[in-house]
Amino acid sequence: MLPQERLAQQIEFLLVCDQLKSVQRTTLLHDGTRAENSAEHSWHLALMALTLGEYAPAGTDLNKVLRLLLVHDLIEIEAGDLHFDATAAALAQKAADEEAAAHTLFGRLPQAQGEYFYALWQEFEAQATLEARFAKAIDALQPMLLTWGEGGLGCTDRFPELTLERVLRLKEPRLNEFPALWAVAQATLNRACAAGILNKQPT
Amino acid sequence: MLPQERLAQQIEFLLVCDQLKSVQRTTLLHDGTRAENSAEHSWHLALMALTLGEYAPAGTDLNKVLRLLLVHDLIEIEAGDLHFDATAAALAQKAADEEAAAHTLFGRLPQAQGEYFYALWQEFEAQATLEARFAKAIDALQPMLLTWGEGGLGCTDRFPELTLERVLRLKEPRLNEFPALWAVAQATLNRACAAGILNKQPT
Repeated sequence: MLPQERLAQQIEFLLVCDQLKSVQRTTLLHDGTRAENSAEHSWHLALMALTLGEYAPAGTDLNKVLRLLLVHDLIEIEAGDLHFDATAAALAQKAADEEAAAHTLFGRLPQAQGEYFYALWQEFEAQATLEARFAKAIDALQPMLLTWGEGGLGCTDRFPELTLERVLRLKEPRLNEFPALWAVAQATLNRACAAGILNKQPT
Repeated sequence: MLPQERLAQQIEFLLVCDQLKSVQRTTLLHDGTRAENSAEHSWHLALMALTLGEYAPAGTDLNKVLRLLLVHDLIEIEAGDLHFDATAAALAQKAADEEAAAHTLFGRLPQAQGEYFYALWQEFEAQATLEARFAKAIDALQPMLLTWGEGGLGCTDRFPELTLERVLRLKEPRLNEFPALWAVAQATLNRACAAGILNKQPT
């Protein structure tokens, strides 16, 4: 491949990636004005990792965490986003869609580079490395902060089924490996209950 | 400071940073549907740096570039964004506003960490390191791609004063240290002229 063809492929990929800004998530911004999109979400996660890196175990490669977070949602351009509380069938279909999406999207890049991006995405998905699990924990914590953090509005109107107990059960597997993050998550939810923006039990 | 106070400060900082998603830039998304915001912009720049890192000179610390880009626009939460073609007086006022904004914003963090973030922001602004200049070159190139890249809509209606000659003159100092990026910028603008979405001369 000519150098200018290689560069042209990379530029075209980066313009396709612009579409991540138009993928809406179910989480609203902290001020509740609109839904968050997956591009700004990815930025926020990377910033969180940079700010909260000290709570990762010694030896965690924070630079790798940042790269995982920058890339992890890209395949939503092709496959869309799904709420974390979706059904098992929906999640399984999503996994298949995302695998195909990853091949399509990262296949736009020069081969070795596409394989590198694919490997980053796979590492995040597989959750086998400390870096991938810390990245996922950040990803699990962030929407909790937006929704139930100090000044947040909760989501009992949009998701009445999300009670304290249910959120704790869903989030614990992602967070309990990192005690500081898990403590923040629990404190955030307990505060939200006290503030009346999260129900302890189904109403 | 107690560990839980330290963590609480960091979490509060991260919630304030959510506001960057509501800072609008003058650049539109590539599909023209709305203005880009500074949070998703920061993500896009970091992804660009990850994708185009091979065009930075040998020895460039790409991990540092990513950190500079994740943090560089944060002070807009306090100080707002400004078009790159603003007047000198407006740019000088902006610099003073941004310095104050940096102290306010990064002052929310535990002291040593706030100083680290401030140093990242200062490094980007000072443009004295290779990493800061590569980050700035990416920052200069990205809106050109969105506006005038393949499939872009141009901006002759919104900014009729932006001719080929003027854009080249404004952008060259940011880009010509990195020949591949500068070549992309020039090719993008020339293609835009040929496509009729950028004027060579004032109309």
